[in-house]
Amino acid sequence: MIKLLEVKKIFKETDQYLDQTVKIGGWIRTSRTSKTFGFIELNDGSYYKNIQIVLEDQLENFDEISKLPISSAIIVEGKLVATPEAKQPFEIKATHIEVEGPSTPDYPLQKKRHSFEFLRSIAHLRPRSNTFSAVFRVRSIAAYAIHKFFQERGFVYVHTPIITGSDCEGAGAMFRVSTLDFNNIPKDEEGRVDVSKDFFGKETNLTVSGQLNVESYCMAFRNVYTFGPTFRAENSNTARHAAEFWMIEPEIAFADLEDNMELAEEMMKFIIQYVMENAPEEMEFFNTFIDTGLFDRLNNVLNSEFGRVSYTEAIEILKNSKESFEYPVEWGCDLQTEHERYLTEKVFKKPVFVTNYPKDIKAFYMRLNDDQKTVAAMDLLVPGVGEIIGGSQREERMDVLERRMEEMELHKDDYWWYLELRKYGGTRHAGYGLGFERAIMYLTGMGNIRDVISFPRTVKTAEF
Amino acid sequence: MIKLLEVKKIFKETDQYLDQTVKIGGWIRTSRTSKTFGFIELNDGSYYKNIQIVLEDQLENFDEISKLPISSAIIVEGKLVATPEAKQPFEIKATHIEVEGPSTPDYPLQKKRHSFEFLRSIAHLRPRSNTFSAVFRVRSIAAYAIHKFFQERGFVYVHTPIITGSDCEGAGAMFRVSTLDFNNIPKDEEGRVDVSKDFFGKETNLTVSGQLNVESYCMAFRNVYTFGPTFRAENSNTARHAAEFWMIEPEIAFADLEDNMELAEEMMKFIIQYVMENAPEEMEFFNTFIDTGLFDRLNNVLNSEFGRVSYTEAIEILKNSKESFEYPVEWGCDLQTEHERYLTEKVFKKPVFVTNYPKDIKAFYMRLNDDQKTVAAMDLLVPGVGEIIGGSQREERMDVLERRMEEMELHKDDYWWYLELRKYGGTRHAGYGLGFERAIMYLTGMGNIRDVISFPRTVKTAEF
Repeated sequence: MIKLLEVKKIFKETDQYLDQTVKIGGWIRTSRTSKTFGFIELNDGSYYKNIQIVLEDQLENFDEISKLPISSAIIVEGKLVATPEAKQPFEIKATHIEVEGPSTPDYPLQKKRHSFEFLRSIAHLRPRSNTFSAVFRVRSIAAYAIHKFFQERGFVYVHTPIITGSDCEGAGAMFRVSTLDFNNIPKDEEGRVDVSKDFFGKETNLTVSGQLNVESYCMAFRNVYTFGPTFRAENSNTARHAAEFWMIEPEIAFADLEDNMELAEEMMKFIIQYVMENAPEEMEFFNTFIDTGLFDRLNNVLNSEFGRVSYTEAIEILKNSKESFEYPVEWGCDLQTEHERYLTEKVFKKPVFVTNYPKDIKAFYMRLNDDQKTVAAMDLLVPGVGEIIGGSQREERMDVLERRMEEMELHKDDYWWYLELRKYGGTRHAGYGLGFERAIMYLTGMGNIRDVISFPRTVKTAEF
Repeated sequence: MIKLLEVKKIFKETDQYLDQTVKIGGWIRTSRTSKTFGFIELNDGSYYKNIQIVLEDQLENFDEISKLPISSAIIVEGKLVATPEAKQPFEIKATHIEVEGPSTPDYPLQKKRHSFEFLRSIAHLRPRSNTFSAVFRVRSIAAYAIHKFFQERGFVYVHTPIITGSDCEGAGAMFRVSTLDFNNIPKDEEGRVDVSKDFFGKETNLTVSGQLNVESYCMAFRNVYTFGPTFRAENSNTARHAAEFWMIEPEIAFADLEDNMELAEEMMKFIIQYVMENAPEEMEFFNTFIDTGLFDRLNNVLNSEFGRVSYTEAIEILKNSKESFEYPVEWGCDLQTEHERYLTEKVFKKPVFVTNYPKDIKAFYMRLNDDQKTVAAMDLLVPGVGEIIGGSQREERMDVLERRMEEMELHKDDYWWYLELRKYGGTRHAGYGLGFERAIMYLTGMGNIRDVISFPRTVKTAEF
């Protein structure tokens, strides 16, 4: 039984501990020692900042401690003293130090700067570095902010299934899930894979979205959300794509596209505010070392009313701009990141919702507008990134929904339960998806999705 | 844009709305109408209870509304009036009712009692029933309670990977994840499956536990937890097994088995307390209709100090008992549910931790005790269920860990990064796993895991 004080407490409630004996445990981040005294920067994981330990040669095991390699774990007892003339506000004068777990000199995370690429190869150690300790604490705090936002507003959190028996949404390539023996795939009499022999008795895949499932809960609880992993088996080796990522999908009943946009705006502001308040040291680090425009960008989001522009207007703006785009702009085409960024960075200079996209480039479940050409979709574009949220009002009219499914050659039988939601008291409803990793990249300025996921899964990579 | 008042608000802040005109939306749960007036019980999803709507034939569309089938969605405007003589505290005298989405008379969830088994076949509609609305709101609130508990104590939430490239833990049968064409599995020159052609370039599976991964974050942040889906491809068709379920796995550094038990006890009490306070109507329902011993059982947990008994002592107790068990008891055997329940229900009459199990029935990573025969494992047994939490202090000594791996014929190369955690400043640490669905069953008295998962995945079942 080891009762240790958290370093965060010492920083936050310093007065309570000054001139007292304290006992802490942590890992050595740096160590500078001479023959008679030394300084150790210790990090205990509870706080972004290190605490300085002063050793003197009265310490019984001074020699042993002063030779400990970086990342060794020690337990320190000593007096907390103020150091008004030094850089750090206080330090611990060690009276007793125990070695909890030594490290070795070949510890790969030495003090020098490492490339993010190298650090990915030691994903089990990188959270011990300044950058990744900041990234993953912010990730944790942002996840909590999202739950807090929705729970405080009475939303019900729904765990939609990860393994899905239906390829409903067609949102992307899927991973197959199976217990069949790959050396000996059972076949039926006609030589087709005999899926009845598989674990679930049918073909199953990893989900690409919980939306269709969560809509059924929306029709019971009114306001609901998912927050879980989703998957794409796409061969996209970019800085923004991972095969496994987490997504937040709220769904609201008795609500239209306008309500949806209001919710998304309120949520984005809440997350930013919460993270700024609850991880100030980490955010300061990002603003100083990763993206010097970060605070300006986030404050701009907090302080602006998000813009609104229809897709049709946006196309006009883009066509009339003097900008030369790699991809030409024409009504009916999907917007590329360059277009999105131009709109949000150059035209609106703040986050902007683009609404009412052509139906042919959007999913079957989006509500058809009266013009019969566009659907009540919305994408939220933010400076520095482009699209961060995609959503829509859903088609609640059974006949229109069925017609859209026929147009898109979907099998209505596969969607029997989804259609029934319209038959038994369907209401106007809307929702959106926020890619959690994209949000973390946006909040931190980190440029590669691999650097905001603990153990990233991408094409040809599933280490650890 | 439809701004509707939530029914929960009317119940919680009644005074503010009494004698005012309110506008609400919801689904008809029951409807009793005559030619000149009627009563509708409306549920808007924000609250467990329905609100009573009174219709009179002055209503312009009285005929239409009074004929609406159950589950139709309507928007009601009217005056909230107190009804001191009636069963319900107030009702809404409707002045205007709009049909948002009608239902049809064949709506399968009619007022009569349905079996849980039947309701599973309409998993998209069952959250509209009393029981499942209570189950899934409690599930949501309990999930939040868990995040709140850990976040308020400074724990960092880690999303460990779902797709794993290593079959490390050996905790159970796994689902394979692949993008290979099942009709044409590529083979190498020796006729073996050519996994280099698969998406990740190797064999990958769905995770059975995030523990090994999260240990690496524990060695950086000290206190961490996971909360995510885990999978077992086991052919267990029981009321307690699902192929996909959510698990909470905290991991704490500078901590031993005693700290681990303290944390588990504190967490269990926190969750129960939070759910009782934040879902009182739902919990009342469970205590009345599902499990009349529920409150006694939960209050007993809240008010007792959990017991502690070593496995060796537990075996003695069981052997000396007059109880006739189906499975005989002998030192070295795993405890069966009947043994666990006897210990917690008959002997201790409260939750009890059983500690220090024989090493041969536990995982390789559990810390070897000085007796060389047992490991520092702990299972938490609770009345009515048996085991609800399993955990251990982890083996932090490199040499002992390696020896254990050799004994269990594990390939050390597969665990290179896990072993490195011991090389570079490993500390005493401990952790446990709480199956989230088991916890919900315990909190609600629901007897089948299929009834606490929105869309359950079990052997031969992956519907919706």
